[in-house]
Amino acid sequence: MKKIKVGIIGVGRMGQIHLDNLCLKFPDVEVVAISDVMEESKKFADQYGVNKFYKNCNDLIADSEVEAVVICSPTDQHADNIMTAARAGKEVFCEKPMDLSLETVKKVLSVVEETGIKFMLGFNRRFDPNFMKIRSLIDEGKVGEPQIVKITSRDPGPPPISYIKTSGGMFLDMTIHDFDMARFMTDSPVKEVFAVGRNLTDPEIGKAGDIDTAVITLTFENGAIATIDNCRKAVYGYDQRVEVFGSKGMAGTHNNTPDNHYYYDQNGQSASLPLHFFMDRYIRSYYNEMKEFMDCLITNTKPKVGGEDGLISLAIGLAANLSMKENRVVRLSEILND
Amino acid sequence: MKKIKVGIIGVGRMGQIHLDNLCLKFPDVEVVAISDVMEESKKFADQYGVNKFYKNCNDLIADSEVEAVVICSPTDQHADNIMTAARAGKEVFCEKPMDLSLETVKKVLSVVEETGIKFMLGFNRRFDPNFMKIRSLIDEGKVGEPQIVKITSRDPGPPPISYIKTSGGMFLDMTIHDFDMARFMTDSPVKEVFAVGRNLTDPEIGKAGDIDTAVITLTFENGAIATIDNCRKAVYGYDQRVEVFGSKGMAGTHNNTPDNHYYYDQNGQSASLPLHFFMDRYIRSYYNEMKEFMDCLITNTKPKVGGEDGLISLAIGLAANLSMKENRVVRLSEILND
Amino acid sequence: MKKIKVGIIGVGRMGQIHLDNLCLKFPDVEVVAISDVMEESKKFADQYGVNKFYKNCNDLIADSEVEAVVICSPTDQHADNIMTAARAGKEVFCEKPMDLSLETVKKVLSVVEETGIKFMLGFNRRFDPNFMKIRSLIDEGKVGEPQIVKITSRDPGPPPISYIKTSGGMFLDMTIHDFDMARFMTDSPVKEVFAVGRNLTDPEIGKAGDIDTAVITLTFENGAIATIDNCRKAVYGYDQRVEVFGSKGMAGTHNNTPDNHYYYDQNGQSASLPLHFFMDRYIRSYYNEMKEFMDCLITNTKPKVGGEDGLISLAIGLAANLSMKENRVVRLSEILND
Amino acid sequence: MKKIKVGIIGVGRMGQIHLDNLCLKFPDVEVVAISDVMEESKKFADQYGVNKFYKNCNDLIADSEVEAVVICSPTDQHADNIMTAARAGKEVFCEKPMDLSLETVKKVLSVVEETGIKFMLGFNRRFDPNFMKIRSLIDEGKVGEPQIVKITSRDPGPPPISYIKTSGGMFLDMTIHDFDMARFMTDSPVKEVFAVGRNLTDPEIGKAGDIDTAVITLTFENGAIATIDNCRKAVYGYDQRVEVFGSKGMAGTHNNTPDNHYYYDQNGQSASLPLHFFMDRYIRSYYNEMKEFMDCLITNTKPKVGGEDGLISLAIGLAANLSMKENRVVRLSEILND
Repeated sequence: MKKIKVGIIGVGRMGQIHLDNLCLKFPDVEVVAISDVMEESKKFADQYGVNKFYKNCNDLIADSEVEAVVICSPTDQHADNIMTAARAGKEVFCEKPMDLSLETVKKVLSVVEETGIKFMLGFNRRFDPNFMKIRSLIDEGKVGEPQIVKITSRDPGPPPISYIKTSGGMFLDMTIHDFDMARFMTDSPVKEVFAVGRNLTDPEIGKAGDIDTAVITLTFENGAIATIDNCRKAVYGYDQRVEVFGSKGMAGTHNNTPDNHYYYDQNGQSASLPLHFFMDRYIRSYYNEMKEFMDCLITNTKPKVGGEDGLISLAIGLAANLSMKENRVVRLSEILND
Repeated sequence: MKKIKVGIIGVGRMGQIHLDNLCLKFPDVEVVAISDVMEESKKFADQYGVNKFYKNCNDLIADSEVEAVVICSPTDQHADNIMTAARAGKEVFCEKPMDLSLETVKKVLSVVEETGIKFMLGFNRRFDPNFMKIRSLIDEGKVGEPQIVKITSRDPGPPPISYIKTSGGMFLDMTIHDFDMARFMTDSPVKEVFAVGRNLTDPEIGKAGDIDTAVITLTFENGAIATIDNCRKAVYGYDQRVEVFGSKGMAGTHNNTPDNHYYYDQNGQSASLPLHFFMDRYIRSYYNEMKEFMDCLITNTKPKVGGEDGLISLAIGLAANLSMKENRVVRLSEILND
Repeated sequence: MKKIKVGIIGVGRMGQIHLDNLCLKFPDVEVVAISDVMEESKKFADQYGVNKFYKNCNDLIADSEVEAVVICSPTDQHADNIMTAARAGKEVFCEKPMDLSLETVKKVLSVVEETGIKFMLGFNRRFDPNFMKIRSLIDEGKVGEPQIVKITSRDPGPPPISYIKTSGGMFLDMTIHDFDMARFMTDSPVKEVFAVGRNLTDPEIGKAGDIDTAVITLTFENGAIATIDNCRKAVYGYDQRVEVFGSKGMAGTHNNTPDNHYYYDQNGQSASLPLHFFMDRYIRSYYNEMKEFMDCLITNTKPKVGGEDGLISLAIGLAANLSMKENRVVRLSEILND
Repeated sequence: MKKIKVGIIGVGRMGQIHLDNLCLKFPDVEVVAISDVMEESKKFADQYGVNKFYKNCNDLIADSEVEAVVICSPTDQHADNIMTAARAGKEVFCEKPMDLSLETVKKVLSVVEETGIKFMLGFNRRFDPNFMKIRSLIDEGKVGEPQIVKITSRDPGPPPISYIKTSGGMFLDMTIHDFDMARFMTDSPVKEVFAVGRNLTDPEIGKAGDIDTAVITLTFENGAIATIDNCRKAVYGYDQRVEVFGSKGMAGTHNNTPDNHYYYDQNGQSASLPLHFFMDRYIRSYYNEMKEFMDCLITNTKPKVGGEDGLISLAIGLAANLSMKENRVVRLSEILND
């Protein structure tokens, strides 16, 4: 059987996850090249038996053996990487976000469209078994018309201040996953955004111009309402829950835990905390999303999560920033039609 | 021992609960009179061995044997009943709300203050063992500074349309409990209100000028944010949950169920639904709140939930109505300083 | 309506529970007399407005106003009380056990039969809402043929050594409830008993000739097997769980807790311990069993739990003692046909 | 780095799991040879890039490149495979059981001892994260002295009748895992065995001379008691739970489920069933046990689960068979000192 030849751009934290999955769990796939600006990252190529290592990602894209590229470079290079790869006729999987500028994203999307490549954006949570289960209960009609979507998304701790300064702010680096989740659950266009943000955990975050705690309300064209609550620091760990209330029932998910033990003593009844962070919690979703991408390449179909989804979530994030700044409801059309 | 002599105005659904509790569970209390506009309600006096039955509540208030009145009349008579009783020097427990007009409520409160009577408002949920447990975890410092309060409050089905028409709308008849709950949990003044309301379950409710589904965001002076979600119709029953996330931990409560059974067969794992409605769910809170009132009478202390709490929750409800109507953030001061 | 006139013999812990229920929750019942060897127990008569107080229980039984007696005297007087009351034509509710001697119990049962009175034994756990729910799932055919019954029954702490010395041993004072529960769940005659008992918690219990920890296997005529595990001391409190596994499904119950809160911090996820002891855990079952008895008096039907059930459970207990002593399987017929 | 060279004997269901783990998840290990009596199993060698395929396992054992063998052949060849491999100086990992004859097992163990090879037996459940968590709570002193161990172990459905006929019976093919688990939890020698077995699910199993439902009691030298309940057919799936009650607390585990969703509608509250069968449920334990074996090879230490553990569990199984047959308590010494 002919294997799909893949190149990976950037082998930081996410790149390594994709490298490991692609090498060990996809018998139909061969990772033929890795690129990374750090020379020492060549060790990953050696470890996984990848023959080619490039310091310059454009060399990887230009490599005629590479059929598809998986982009895990820093966010500010995503747009360039996508466009270069698309123009070279490569299929593209890219970590979110495409870019923090709506204009750039629109430009990227037009290149993707012109070149006709397959393009998938890494909204991995859509591929988490828990959230997929909710979605399938909705699809089976068991929830009825979704009316209220509740998303709780809290991190065990904030990223470094240096990252926060360039991240575009919490709504664009963290909540953007939840915006996509809300859209995934309601399956309806977002109409309005109202965001309240606070700096409550670490004053340094505030000094860097960002927030760490927020509640965001989204309204949808079909009448549904979503409420998202975020915090950059939950002392008990990574809290990732979704609940959808509809006309026929309610479906939700508890957090995943490392084990299902219980313990009782005179002080009470206790159990394990949620899995520590995204690499543990979403380990299966990273596999599942890559499987979706590879399946699309094999069956020549369009990935379920594309550039348009990235565009919309970015727009919601920008609307949330504006809403918070002006303390008012922002219609998504204000942002999109800018 | 001298017993406290109580009169109950109105023996509808709530009046009967208080009658039953006061007669059967408070050895220090004697219900000496009942009043109700329905002649047939005399049967309750007979059943519980209450000697006096009045058709006119003012006769009950005027009865010199009566020391304290428990007001369970229709909402539009609450204000009159309170003021009459206060002026007659009776201690007063009144079901919420005091009135749907802010002006009237302010007038009632001034009478209460002038007369110096003890006054308690029936925000019973503050006395629910589950929510008290969260509150006590906060008081013990285990939650730290409350940052996000999530309240889910959904009814098993809507009240009759006739009731809806005169109720002041969902925010004043249903969410008002949740507004008080949010204040109970954050222990900080509400700053702003943003409400989204929808008519999604029954068009008749919309025709009656009301909504049945809502998400409300409250901001507090101390930086905390609350998100409340409501629906007048949850097919799975009465859903009453609160979760408080803070700097040191998270405390929340699951619904109460009629039993703790589990059942597994080839179709899945199942368990009981929540207790059916408020009379089952809050049965202990009704007892606990009356105990608070009676304890205050005995120990000559001020009830924990007074007229001011009613005033504020009403103001939040009015702000929510305005916010929904104008689709904007409403500062509570707009309403209170009107 | 004519009320049922009840006399209560003994107002210790259990007598007080029944007194309170009968006085406050049964409008059709009037407690007309109390007897207790302790003169100061007269205060309960005063508190609940019971007119007659006797030091001698036979005077209560002889009181012509008394129609039914509720026997809460010490165990060694149960048999005499029942027989005296039966011969006086009174209906009888008696706390378990009837007696620790099989011979005496048989004699009591023959008197009950001769006199034709209604007789109910206080196996209250059959009336616990959780266990009733399992039973009803079995009755609905959802469990299928019961194959394995698991009963965990552990106390928060042992009774006083003085009580242990006269209790007949753990199998007769504690496990006897579980023997009845196993019969309730399988609805089949017990065939064999195998008991392993240990003294693991407090050497004083061993010195008193008793055990504190046990695992008992029961086999039933229909092929079902039950496993019961007991301990007189569970540091985390009163542990009362039942699980029935059958050909079509499994039904079980978790413990009841004082509230349904959850709490998360960096140390883990925690929740409330079980309700403290039998008075809290089985508060509703005490009411339900008394309701059963009163309903039987009103409708002239036979109580669901009668003397035969007491006889069988006692026999199982004696078989367990013999099994443990001789470390062998004991057929119940060895005991019953003795 | 020098890799450990492994040969796998038999690539049926378990062999494939080990093959997959060893090839994909152990960078320090190289599977150099596979043997299987079925010629078509060569495809697994091709798929995983294993160079050598033997039809005869002795050729694999004789292969000088092979340092360690993983034995997944049919049970009746285990003993021969182990002894041949040991005499050839290969380290051995063998699926349980070593053999169904106590005599043969003793012979195998003496060969293992003489040759001084490393030997590990596949009691994989000791490496399940849930049960390891209980064990670690015991090790931390949080459970105190274990007093009662409850093990529930039920299969989703019986194996083929043909398998049952040669399996040695349920106690040797299924419960043997639970016997080892009980020993793992109490860490004390088994003293006595009492077993009750029934044929309740499928008469064909009875005709084949076996049972499908059982409750077994084990007593331990330290006073602890274990109760194990088994069924070959649980309609709701694979049920694997352990609970340990001790002087200082209780630790237990719930089943693992494919997701953590919950769903409510008017019929009740539901959730997912346990993971389907051992390959899903114990997927991590298979990895963990192989890691233990490989770590022992690398660090030259003795595996935690060795031949002695297999011997004892087999003896308990034989004692259970005898106990069931003669309906009496069997001391383990009766079997071991035979």
